[in-house]
Amino acid sequence: MKTYTKELHIKTKNRIEFVNITEEVRKAVKKSGVKDGIVLINPMHITASVFINDNESGLIQDFKEWLDGLAPMKKNYHHHQTGEDNGFSHLWRTIMGRETTVAITDGDLNFGTWETIFYGEFDGQRDKRILVKIIGE
Amino acid sequence: MKTYTKELHIKTKNRIEFVNITEEVRKAVKKSGVKDGIVLINPMHITASVFINDNESGLIQDFKEWLDGLAPMKKNYHHHQTGEDNGFSHLWRTIMGRETTVAITDGDLNFGTWETIFYGEFDGQRDKRILVKIIGE
Amino acid sequence: MKTYTKELHIKTKNRIEFVNITEEVRKAVKKSGVKDGIVLINPMHITASVFINDNESGLIQDFKEWLDGLAPMKKNYHHHQTGEDNGFSHLWRTIMGRETTVAITDGDLNFGTWETIFYGEFDGQRDKRILVKIIGE
Repeated sequence: MKTYTKELHIKTKNRIEFVNITEEVRKAVKKSGVKDGIVLINPMHITASVFINDNESGLIQDFKEWLDGLAPMKKNYHHHQTGEDNGFSHLWRTIMGRETTVAITDGDLNFGTWETIFYGEFDGQRDKRILVKIIGE
Repeated sequence: MKTYTKELHIKTKNRIEFVNITEEVRKAVKKSGVKDGIVLINPMHITASVFINDNESGLIQDFKEWLDGLAPMKKNYHHHQTGEDNGFSHLWRTIMGRETTVAITDGDLNFGTWETIFYGEFDGQRDKRILVKIIGE
Repeated sequence: MKTYTKELHIKTKNRIEFVNITEEVRKAVKKSGVKDGIVLINPMHITASVFINDNESGLIQDFKEWLDGLAPMKKNYHHHQTGEDNGFSHLWRTIMGRETTVAITDGDLNFGTWETIFYGEFDGQRDKRILVKIIGE
């Protein structure tokens, strides 16, 4: 059995940003030497997501507008009584999910044609970490 | 360590359909010979979900109506500027989640009484694939 | 390769409750002897979630109000034709997600500063089980 752990570091320009991290995850898979197994990818933060969907700019705009409809950025959440202003970020991350797990076969991500791994940042402009954990053989 | 990989193939009659795939996943677990480990199940498509909930027809009707309330089928999404008409499918899949991971104990799915694995198709009537990846010993 | 399986038992006082289970999961990781691997945590029920977010009481209140907005407790769901009254519980669990998977590094949860594992109970006051499955080496 082999394991491999890597942290990706990211600091987005905008507070809300969707970043395609597929190739960075793929590089980690290659470097791990794991031919058959799984890779878990998660933010180490609670106002961000790692998720899989289509790499299409219109859809990314749809996500932003849809999330703002389900959990408005401008709303005054109970969470803000702590001095924070990122209540929406916690809820957006809940909708988009924390982590994703992807199968590794033949030493590569076992992916469908359109599957793309995104880091969804909902409270950015700060240093953030993404954890990549690989186990297999 | 053992690994096992299987693709399930599916083509639903309807655009929207919920298919119980529990027994097909269980067969893969038995065939893998893994007694203790995990099984990851995910669609290889970005307009479908694999999720776990109750196998009850009223609840499935509730899911459809609820999802249409949260992300209407009839809305004109930015994504449609590409020529697609499945903006809602991407959002429904986001709510329902991409994948599920289930524990394997004593060579079988380690499940509660009512846990049922569903493939949720939100843009069907086409050939689709579901990936089953098993690792353990 | 090592594996370790543990069931946590829980019976909440209230129908809706968010319980911090981080230390119980950590104990299982220590007991497993796994230094490098993953831990899967899921309820064995279909009206509950295991998820990761901030341990802040205002945010937990936000979750409850937000979930009731997205899937009202008081609504008469199709699912209720079976005699159940927990349609909302199934939908809340869908939003919050069924399971989470966490990396294990150096024999401990590989966590960011604020990551906290919660059991989200949406139909409680009954005996419930949470499955902890660890694989690694």
